[in-house]
Amino acid sequence: MRNPQLNGDGKLQHLLTIEGLPREILVHILDTAASFIGVTEREVKKVPLLRGKSVFNLFFEPSTRTRTTFEIAAKRLSADVINLNITVSSSTKGETLLDTVDNLCAMHADMFVVRHSSSGAAHLIASHVAPHVHVINAGDGRHAHPTQGLLDIYTIRHYKKDFTGLSVAIVGDVLHSRVARSLIHGLTTLGAPDVRVIGPRTLLPTGVEQLGVSVHHDMREGLAGCDVVVMLRLQNERMKGPLLPSAQEFFKSYGLTPQKLVLAKPDAIVMHPGPMNRGVEIDSSVADGPHSVILPQVTFGIAVRMAVMSILAGN
Amino acid sequence: MRNPQLNGDGKLQHLLTIEGLPREILVHILDTAASFIGVTEREVKKVPLLRGKSVFNLFFEPSTRTRTTFEIAAKRLSADVINLNITVSSSTKGETLLDTVDNLCAMHADMFVVRHSSSGAAHLIASHVAPHVHVINAGDGRHAHPTQGLLDIYTIRHYKKDFTGLSVAIVGDVLHSRVARSLIHGLTTLGAPDVRVIGPRTLLPTGVEQLGVSVHHDMREGLAGCDVVVMLRLQNERMKGPLLPSAQEFFKSYGLTPQKLVLAKPDAIVMHPGPMNRGVEIDSSVADGPHSVILPQVTFGIAVRMAVMSILAGN
Amino acid sequence: MRNPQLNGDGKLQHLLTIEGLPREILVHILDTAASFIGVTEREVKKVPLLRGKSVFNLFFEPSTRTRTTFEIAAKRLSADVINLNITVSSSTKGETLLDTVDNLCAMHADMFVVRHSSSGAAHLIASHVAPHVHVINAGDGRHAHPTQGLLDIYTIRHYKKDFTGLSVAIVGDVLHSRVARSLIHGLTTLGAPDVRVIGPRTLLPTGVEQLGVSVHHDMREGLAGCDVVVMLRLQNERMKGPLLPSAQEFFKSYGLTPQKLVLAKPDAIVMHPGPMNRGVEIDSSVADGPHSVILPQVTFGIAVRMAVMSILAGN
Repeated sequence: MRNPQLNGDGKLQHLLTIEGLPREILVHILDTAASFIGVTEREVKKVPLLRGKSVFNLFFEPSTRTRTTFEIAAKRLSADVINLNITVSSSTKGETLLDTVDNLCAMHADMFVVRHSSSGAAHLIASHVAPHVHVINAGDGRHAHPTQGLLDIYTIRHYKKDFTGLSVAIVGDVLHSRVARSLIHGLTTLGAPDVRVIGPRTLLPTGVEQLGVSVHHDMREGLAGCDVVVMLRLQNERMKGPLLPSAQEFFKSYGLTPQKLVLAKPDAIVMHPGPMNRGVEIDSSVADGPHSVILPQVTFGIAVRMAVMSILAGN
Repeated sequence: MRNPQLNGDGKLQHLLTIEGLPREILVHILDTAASFIGVTEREVKKVPLLRGKSVFNLFFEPSTRTRTTFEIAAKRLSADVINLNITVSSSTKGETLLDTVDNLCAMHADMFVVRHSSSGAAHLIASHVAPHVHVINAGDGRHAHPTQGLLDIYTIRHYKKDFTGLSVAIVGDVLHSRVARSLIHGLTTLGAPDVRVIGPRTLLPTGVEQLGVSVHHDMREGLAGCDVVVMLRLQNERMKGPLLPSAQEFFKSYGLTPQKLVLAKPDAIVMHPGPMNRGVEIDSSVADGPHSVILPQVTFGIAVRMAVMSILAGN
Repeated sequence: MRNPQLNGDGKLQHLLTIEGLPREILVHILDTAASFIGVTEREVKKVPLLRGKSVFNLFFEPSTRTRTTFEIAAKRLSADVINLNITVSSSTKGETLLDTVDNLCAMHADMFVVRHSSSGAAHLIASHVAPHVHVINAGDGRHAHPTQGLLDIYTIRHYKKDFTGLSVAIVGDVLHSRVARSLIHGLTTLGAPDVRVIGPRTLLPTGVEQLGVSVHHDMREGLAGCDVVVMLRLQNERMKGPLLPSAQEFFKSYGLTPQKLVLAKPDAIVMHPGPMNRGVEIDSSVADGPHSVILPQVTFGIAVRMAVMSILAGN
């Protein structure tokens, strides 16, 4: 089966998931992102690469933070951005998802940034649109969130230079995390030899070992000697649900504190996709401490999204 | 009485309704729209005709689809677009409609795109604004939706070239449709000799014949030999209301199926203003079939709105 | 203590409150605003002063009107504008205010326009952001609304030229009004010798005399011979609350009618920050009458906001 993300020439047509993305395309995105870091730091933060293009933020699930990062990235590329919050829109008028997409294509959309609560929604849209239209998955159900995975990889490469010999620990609610899934695929593709997932049995997917990771239920054991600690967000609805005794219990076992962090390498970096629950996943002294690269992640995220958009648009 | 849409020189000052719009102005809008089709298909889909102008989308009734088409049209003309959803805004703070409009005029608005649930709202605003401000009616109650009527006419002209000798059937809930009303006025002005409305007695306005159309309650009879079939949207609230037995019953009598469509001319086109209720007004095989021009309507809709905006702005 | 609004060179770094703002900075803002009046009246209402800058409208409390004025001002300066309505956003996901701000700074925001229901929110943000980021307070609790105060002062200077010898009456719900507070500080700084507040005891703050104003409970007495009448908005929730018998009673005592206005100077101007409650604070014949400068206030408000933004950005 042909990779639905690539066109006939093997070039990136859509960004749907990091799973199955060739190594050279991953590296090309990271390298392009690096070239945009300079743009976001200069006085006039704009390049005309997407001038006259229409980018639609198609959010079937609200997410101000993710929508904002794509909106900023598109505007810095000089695109016209149209925000569509579809929950309050025509989907309530009985129109199907694909009819909505067909309509926007007929308005000569160039790119869709899609956020949807159902896994596979972005794939469905990508399989349906006209050949000149590009789709970026901005999170679909529990499945994938590839630009988050890419910015995580970018961050690791920025601080650690090389994935050879790297130990990466991913901690928390792996079960519900599209962020974890995307990151694991990226690390595997780039050759990170030691990826560990850490969490209670109830929050780790069964068979997660098949993704090429080792599994730990004891956080101290899992963190030992690692170079990178990626804390996952614990969603509010889990904190009082049947999978967890309480947020306090979770913090005691799996919250990142200075006491636990000393078990990692002395130059370990700490990451979090945000928004953080301070005192649940992570102690404030770690979040704001010298190991934290949580805010640089956000900065790199803009550059990564600019890179993806400009590569898709053929620049 | 002076036509409130025209200025002293007989030029278009506001677009409020197709009713009473001179034939030459209708044709000028269609011709201008044709010139914009090229713009929307090229690499950089922007022209600077409205650069530095402030266009306000003033939506007192939510409509993502219509708002989006105007937003795209305005941005492709390089205008600054401000979206105002007034239901959640200052109208709830006790301010009158005209005070809101006065305030926006004082901010040097150039153009208002107005959607309101009350018939006549756009007229009221147009009669109130300063001479340099232009108002476009984007749907007022059951009254008018002129840009939709214009894009319908544009679509018919595109496929049928000429209105002489044309038979047009408009099917469904004519009673509540501002789309039907706008289209009928346009067709009459452009000389279409045979316009038919088809629907159950409860969904046709009394005295609709006075608009110069023939009335049919039997869909097969009404479709016979027609060149154009315009299906209207059936709003959800009607489907279970006192005017209709059920959506299923409606589809049986007035839904457009391949079996009914064969009664029209072999080269008949099928139109729908969207959003479609598949299986209620129209069968999917027809909506997606070779006679359907529903998506081209959307494309032409952008060009028509660009045309109206650029004509109003004096370009 | 250093003034948190000024940088080390005594230049404006943030605009948080008019209180304590040096006279020369106030005058510089007013003079700069005057230079922008021309821009908003010409054909292409844009200047490139903020091109490539990212301005975030950070509204923790909804206010379409205020958000719109800042959005227009920023777009006329060619900035990229991102609207964030935080009530429905990540603050509900457990993220702290300062984490949200840190994230937006990491996206290379240049300017925040902040509206918040808590007094001091804009100060807190300003004390936290990176040195190149500027914060404008667009209303915080009952505390301050400096751009409204500045546009009020601009309006008074426009019509009265000079503050020496001026009598200004501020009428209504002074207790809950950040507008009143900002205006009083501005008038005091610019040397207006006679500022009066007029209202029922329940709607005047205790100790208001310490701001350098005289207090009147009888409106006729308070209006006598004044040059400027500033009517304040009465919020709906006050009208039936314990502080007031009823909106009708309030209008009888403190609503501005032609009969009361004759007690002011013959060339007195009447102002109101909007949105107006006609028949509560002000009679329609006065709001729309020859003394009213309520709509010019709105026009000047855009120029004042452009001035503040361009001064903060260093232009």
